[in-house]
Amino acid sequence: MKNTILGFTFIIATALVISCTSKTEEPTTTFDLVTAKAEIEEANENFMALVAAGDSVGLANAYTSDAKFMSAGAPSVVGRANIQSAMAGIVNSGITKVDLRLENVYGTKDLIAEEGELSLFVGDKEVAIEKYLVLWKKEDGKWKLFRDIFNSNLPVE
Amino acid sequence: MKNTILGFTFIIATALVISCTSKTEEPTTTFDLVTAKAEIEEANENFMALVAAGDSVGLANAYTSDAKFMSAGAPSVVGRANIQSAMAGIVNSGITKVDLRLENVYGTKDLIAEEGELSLFVGDKEVAIEKYLVLWKKEDGKWKLFRDIFNSNLPVE
Repeated sequence: MKNTILGFTFIIATALVISCTSKTEEPTTTFDLVTAKAEIEEANENFMALVAAGDSVGLANAYTSDAKFMSAGAPSVVGRANIQSAMAGIVNSGITKVDLRLENVYGTKDLIAEEGELSLFVGDKEVAIEKYLVLWKKEDGKWKLFRDIFNSNLPVE
Repeated sequence: MKNTILGFTFIIATALVISCTSKTEEPTTTFDLVTAKAEIEEANENFMALVAAGDSVGLANAYTSDAKFMSAGAPSVVGRANIQSAMAGIVNSGITKVDLRLENVYGTKDLIAEEGELSLFVGDKEVAIEKYLVLWKKEDGKWKLFRDIFNSNLPVE
């Protein structure tokens, strides 16, 4: 009888150990916003280099496949193929450089919101100063622009 | 001897039960994006009612104390007092109605990103169609606008 109870108690204890262990084996959150900010800054450096190179294919690939490019003066441009056309339009319009100035990031491993300001250049001439919000998501292990909206800081002429 | 083992095993089992229980007593995440979406929709209804009432104080209180209102044609307006002035400017400009059309929400209990489209009206006339991104944060237990950026869907005339 005691052996039975002992065995039974042991089975329960073992079950509890397995139960507890399985709980602590859940993947721990290694997300760290400081690291994410550095990764977003790196992604911005890459974006600026692609604009300087006039690489609309590379720019389109900086966006998620289901991204929205929310530029002023037109409805949102949805999806990578359409965004590539929009990027080709921008680099063909004479824009030679974008200067992205990240101010803050917020969020989690699943979604980062970035706010900042940017300047557009034609040659050495600064032709626009804008504020922006970008939502970033990871696609294929890389942070990509999921939503990208901006507007001018300057009064309409 | 068996009694000792039995008792010892029982203590371990009890300890494991307490250990497991204490783990499951950690505050569970009750966040649910469907509920949050409904809460944001309610906050938008409130915002639309405040615009219709021309209530710039109420509108400023819909923003967090550290909010940024990122309107086109000017730098960001930062903080509730400045946002109240901006809201007074909008309601005094003749805008009688805003129609907010939420499309999607993303995020967590700490930060919601909303995307949508809006129309502005002067009387019965729709004078602007814009897309927007809003970051929402809870302040005093209520969702408030933390970042608010939008731009026109229409080409510059």
